[in-house]
Amino acid sequence: MSAKTNTRIVLAARPDGAPRPGDFRVETAPVPALKEGEVLLETVYLSLDPYMRGRMRDLKSYAPSLALGDVIVGGTVSRVVASRHALWHEGDLVSAYAGWQRYAVSDGQGLRKLDPAAAPPSTALGVLGMPGLTAYSGLREIGKPKAGETVVVAAASGAVGSAVGQIARIHGARAVGIVGGKEKAEFVKNELGFDVVLDHRAPDFAQQLARACPDGIDVYFENVGGKVWDAVFPLLNDFARVPVCGLIAHYNDANDPDQGVDRLPITMREILSRRLTVRGFIVFDFGLEEEFLKAATAWVADGRLRYREDVVEGLENAPQAFIGLLEGKNFGKLVVKVGEL
Amino acid sequence: MSAKTNTRIVLAARPDGAPRPGDFRVETAPVPALKEGEVLLETVYLSLDPYMRGRMRDLKSYAPSLALGDVIVGGTVSRVVASRHALWHEGDLVSAYAGWQRYAVSDGQGLRKLDPAAAPPSTALGVLGMPGLTAYSGLREIGKPKAGETVVVAAASGAVGSAVGQIARIHGARAVGIVGGKEKAEFVKNELGFDVVLDHRAPDFAQQLARACPDGIDVYFENVGGKVWDAVFPLLNDFARVPVCGLIAHYNDANDPDQGVDRLPITMREILSRRLTVRGFIVFDFGLEEEFLKAATAWVADGRLRYREDVVEGLENAPQAFIGLLEGKNFGKLVVKVGEL
Repeated sequence: MSAKTNTRIVLAARPDGAPRPGDFRVETAPVPALKEGEVLLETVYLSLDPYMRGRMRDLKSYAPSLALGDVIVGGTVSRVVASRHALWHEGDLVSAYAGWQRYAVSDGQGLRKLDPAAAPPSTALGVLGMPGLTAYSGLREIGKPKAGETVVVAAASGAVGSAVGQIARIHGARAVGIVGGKEKAEFVKNELGFDVVLDHRAPDFAQQLARACPDGIDVYFENVGGKVWDAVFPLLNDFARVPVCGLIAHYNDANDPDQGVDRLPITMREILSRRLTVRGFIVFDFGLEEEFLKAATAWVADGRLRYREDVVEGLENAPQAFIGLLEGKNFGKLVVKVGEL
Repeated sequence: MSAKTNTRIVLAARPDGAPRPGDFRVETAPVPALKEGEVLLETVYLSLDPYMRGRMRDLKSYAPSLALGDVIVGGTVSRVVASRHALWHEGDLVSAYAGWQRYAVSDGQGLRKLDPAAAPPSTALGVLGMPGLTAYSGLREIGKPKAGETVVVAAASGAVGSAVGQIARIHGARAVGIVGGKEKAEFVKNELGFDVVLDHRAPDFAQQLARACPDGIDVYFENVGGKVWDAVFPLLNDFARVPVCGLIAHYNDANDPDQGVDRLPITMREILSRRLTVRGFIVFDFGLEEEFLKAATAWVADGRLRYREDVVEGLENAPQAFIGLLEGKNFGKLVVKVGEL
């Protein structure tokens, strides 16, 4: 074990706007010896998710910022390769939060055992992991879609968006998905079964959205912000619900305030006059993991909840893949294959 | 009955910014003869409330706009002076929505009989009326104050704000009230028993608010907007709730967009990272009137829910009193005494 060498990717510089390759640094370091109660994890899959951009900022948020030199955080599917912990055994496959590195030492907290016979292990990072739980929780606790209502979600081919639309349809609602590009649109319409799919790159996107929502919008699952919000906002019905789980369009914004028209007063006025609910949340807020896993595993098994993965090979390619994620270049849940299953 | 002459105040022009006396017109007209199923109401008290400013705009909102020439809407305490309705009798005292006029014909819909022995009839327009129900509903359904939490409300000597703080304290929360002027501050502290009262006119108001909320703000009952929101926003705790029931600071805004820094993106980012709930509502949304009347009548009787009224004599003074209301000149729930009890 002490013969092993870890490879890890650390934050070399805080990105100014869009991250660049130089903001990341690949390091090697010896893997420390295990103490009693610890396990050594080897990463099989690393999850890349937009929230990681927030951790690279030096700003107070729901989780502490990364310090310069820190290994970048991230969910993983990992294998226990050595154990001095009573509950975990060599060979166990687990979901963990080991970050952007090949090896990690864990005290066992937060590990969940995976059964490869029940679902492909990589789904623990996507449709049956945090993104799926995010979709499920935001709809269950805030969006509350009812049969016949219209639910709109952007990044609809992505890990969260694809689950939002499909779960909305399981509840009998209409799902309107927004994507970038024709290939993604076809996938969301034909494979995921959304009722309508629109391309936000279309010059008349806002008009298309209005036509796609003739009865207005009852739930807008906010994961992007930017111009999608601008197009959605006028269409929100009285009593519409807006779970806010991400604002990817703004993650690369510099810290300078936006000049121009201050839209806050009119937004508040409309929140009042249309009795809107705008509520931020993150995946851990509601404690629904068990209920979600039970429901979603069944939906995946019977084909009502489909997913697509975009697998990048090799830990060293994580920075470039992450940069692409923020530009919408991935197609499906983005994971990095770090080691063999 | 046909000998009676009605006096009514109609919308003469849509206000551009703050309303001026010329935006209102006093008219006289004959009182029409009653048809079967109708009652004739004579106004005793007319309620003046900030929401009326919204009705004077030509914009879609939760209620239709007034047309030019319409009698201005408003809640009233009225006496039945003639009846061709089986359920209502001459002499009954009722709460109604008869508007800015001396006489109104009603089909009986929406009338509620008042018992002058249970509470002074004018309270049906304030602490036991729509303003009280607004405070009660917004706290019950959105604010959900818990013991030990900090609840902040502006216009704290007004009809809604005074009830918000007192009901918050009944739930064991700390009440921080914001008012304009020393006299109102003393009333809210000494008579209503708020824990802290601040004057928004103080040059260091934002710093005072921060000092008054050392553990942050858990509930901000939004009824004013403007600079109070600016001072409150940085202090909102994770999971804070913001019932939005009014934005009086903006009611006189012209329809021009606000130039300057666009605060919407940063606001949405903070809604996400602090998991805030921002939710608009109006008094009718939750159907809690019966539950409220039962609870609040008891609280008024045992002195836990106090109120102050600002009574203006004479219907013809309603426009000037309403103009003053939007400038914060009233002190307590503003009612116009139109006729004798």
